[in-house]
Amino acid sequence: MSDQNGTALRVALAYHRAWTGGRFDEAMTYVADDVVCDAPAGRIDGAAAYREFMGPFAGMLISAELLAGYGDEEHAVVVYDTVTTLVAGGPAAEWVTVRDGRIAYSRFIFDRLPFEQARSAARSAHSDVHSAHPSTGGQ
Amino acid sequence: MSDQNGTALRVALAYHRAWTGGRFDEAMTYVADDVVCDAPAGRIDGAAAYREFMGPFAGMLISAELLAGYGDEEHAVVVYDTVTTLVAGGPAAEWVTVRDGRIAYSRFIFDRLPFEQARSAARSAHSDVHSAHPSTGGQ
Repeated sequence: MSDQNGTALRVALAYHRAWTGGRFDEAMTYVADDVVCDAPAGRIDGAAAYREFMGPFAGMLISAELLAGYGDEEHAVVVYDTVTTLVAGGPAAEWVTVRDGRIAYSRFIFDRLPFEQARSAARSAHSDVHSAHPSTGGQ
Repeated sequence: MSDQNGTALRVALAYHRAWTGGRFDEAMTYVADDVVCDAPAGRIDGAAAYREFMGPFAGMLISAELLAGYGDEEHAVVVYDTVTTLVAGGPAAEWVTVRDGRIAYSRFIFDRLPFEQARSAARSAHSDVHSAHPSTGGQ
């Protein structure tokens, strides 16, 4: 890990430590109200939408390992690996732009495929249960 | 982009510029013979396997935009977006460890999902063609 301490990196790391430490509300204090996040599934506009995107992921986090953090005054990159209830190894990179101490833009990179596969498998298992026990009904 | 110039970043950027500039063989001169790459689909061991992994991707590249490059003497991160013949927007991050001027380890992060979807769509279109014209035969 880098020992650089630009403003953007400090904010990105504070945000990272908060959400990976189970303090998602604290993490959101580092996210601008009008944040724009380009995530694998598309653009996310605003803090409320960002919370909907990131909250469920934070909620299923078992552990995270910070692999790298670099940055300067305005931009930072964090690279980390995650273990969630859904996927055993889910590395991600976030390239962020920080303004006024908050993340104003984030390019979020991770592989959706294992998450889609896990969800698909869970749905199949769910529908198998329903096939075997139709009396349990649908959702 | 960062203006830092650690050895690892210089190598990572030289590698990046080579393969995104259509000089894949030159790019491979920055990759250690015993490179280990943790890619979304699993671990890749050795330069020959790395070439098989990365060569086809480089071959379908239309353009790449370097978004960020940071690093120090041993490690570097590059973040970039790609346009390929398969997927219009495929951002990726590579976190690399450099030894003796070559990439010895790479953690490679990108979203496989749009690539899988594009391949799947291409397979469907292909099989439709074969259904309509069975005389054209299989692969």
